[in-house]
Amino acid sequence: MKMYGNWRSAAAFRVRIALNLKGIPCEETFIDLDAGDQHAPEFRRINPQGAVPALFDGDGPPLTQSLAILDYLEETHPDVPLLPAEPRARARARSLAQVVACDTHPLYVPRVRTYLMDAYGLPKERMLDFVRHAFETGLKVLETRLSTEDGTGRYCQGDRVSHADLCLVSLYVGTGIFGVDTQAYPTVRRIAETCLAEDAFARAHPLRQPGAPA
Amino acid sequence: MKMYGNWRSAAAFRVRIALNLKGIPCEETFIDLDAGDQHAPEFRRINPQGAVPALFDGDGPPLTQSLAILDYLEETHPDVPLLPAEPRARARARSLAQVVACDTHPLYVPRVRTYLMDAYGLPKERMLDFVRHAFETGLKVLETRLSTEDGTGRYCQGDRVSHADLCLVSLYVGTGIFGVDTQAYPTVRRIAETCLAEDAFARAHPLRQPGAPA
Repeated sequence: MKMYGNWRSAAAFRVRIALNLKGIPCEETFIDLDAGDQHAPEFRRINPQGAVPALFDGDGPPLTQSLAILDYLEETHPDVPLLPAEPRARARARSLAQVVACDTHPLYVPRVRTYLMDAYGLPKERMLDFVRHAFETGLKVLETRLSTEDGTGRYCQGDRVSHADLCLVSLYVGTGIFGVDTQAYPTVRRIAETCLAEDAFARAHPLRQPGAPA
Repeated sequence: MKMYGNWRSAAAFRVRIALNLKGIPCEETFIDLDAGDQHAPEFRRINPQGAVPALFDGDGPPLTQSLAILDYLEETHPDVPLLPAEPRARARARSLAQVVACDTHPLYVPRVRTYLMDAYGLPKERMLDFVRHAFETGLKVLETRLSTEDGTGRYCQGDRVSHADLCLVSLYVGTGIFGVDTQAYPTVRRIAETCLAEDAFARAHPLRQPGAPA
């Protein structure tokens, strides 16, 4: 497979972990989001949304949206499952994943940060209040759910890695990049650190990708 | 089944359409989001995120997050399928759904609108610039994809209703509520109007639910 990604992208990170866990070889091309390369006409022809990841699997058009890609990989490469078999457990894993991928991450992507500074004239530090508020809102929901719901185990859903963990880790690593304190979220930290100690997660880490700061 | 929803909620609307299409009886309790009832302790015990929808299916804990609920209904009530059978087509339907449910809708939910006004002191009309920008960004991506990609048919993905249409319609109805002009998005309009002419969509329409303005 081939993927267009970026060292910092939380969405590309999730897909990279899934590819590693499933043992699917993938060549990643890194798009420079800070230079705006995602808006270049050549890339817009690949993904009209101007966003990463975009995954090529054979001859068809690129696959986009990280959660859709995760489900596609699950359906086409089921051998290392990343969702439980039982429908309620699947639904809980997906729900936790979506707290990150729907309700939290989209609030701090580059285009939102840029809009807040350009349209409202907010200085960077004030704009970052919005970003940190988004992180903290998501982290609070995750901590409450993970620390009180029966389904939690070694990982977000029981004792096997699922889409929920891929998303959780992508948020957790972002707290470092944006300077968000995670002390108040011990269950989130425990699960994220458990994952990051594993090779498939560690190799996918943003700071180990080309273009990342040393 | 039982669902906690709200007349205006785009996420509850999607689930309501799926329940109608699949012929699953469901009793809906309407939470007053404007009065802040989603933050009341009684509701936080149901969904710690303080968000709708929350769906009860039998004795288990509530199911949350609209896309996770749609997948759960698909897995437990497959008779009226709302995703195609072929993995690439499924991935495209899900990707289009996520342009709405991940990248667009979370930007204009009540808590974001409130934050922009309270933390940045923006008057309502200036805050709505952000909302309209979110709608227009999502609509542009959808129009470009739906008008150029081979997969589009009578509906977003081919000639059968899928999760992509449920999400598209939830966004389209929101353009009316927030005063967003849809003239520039003819393919979005065609598909949304096709859906809304059908009984399962029409009965689920926000303005036909209790609590909606006359």
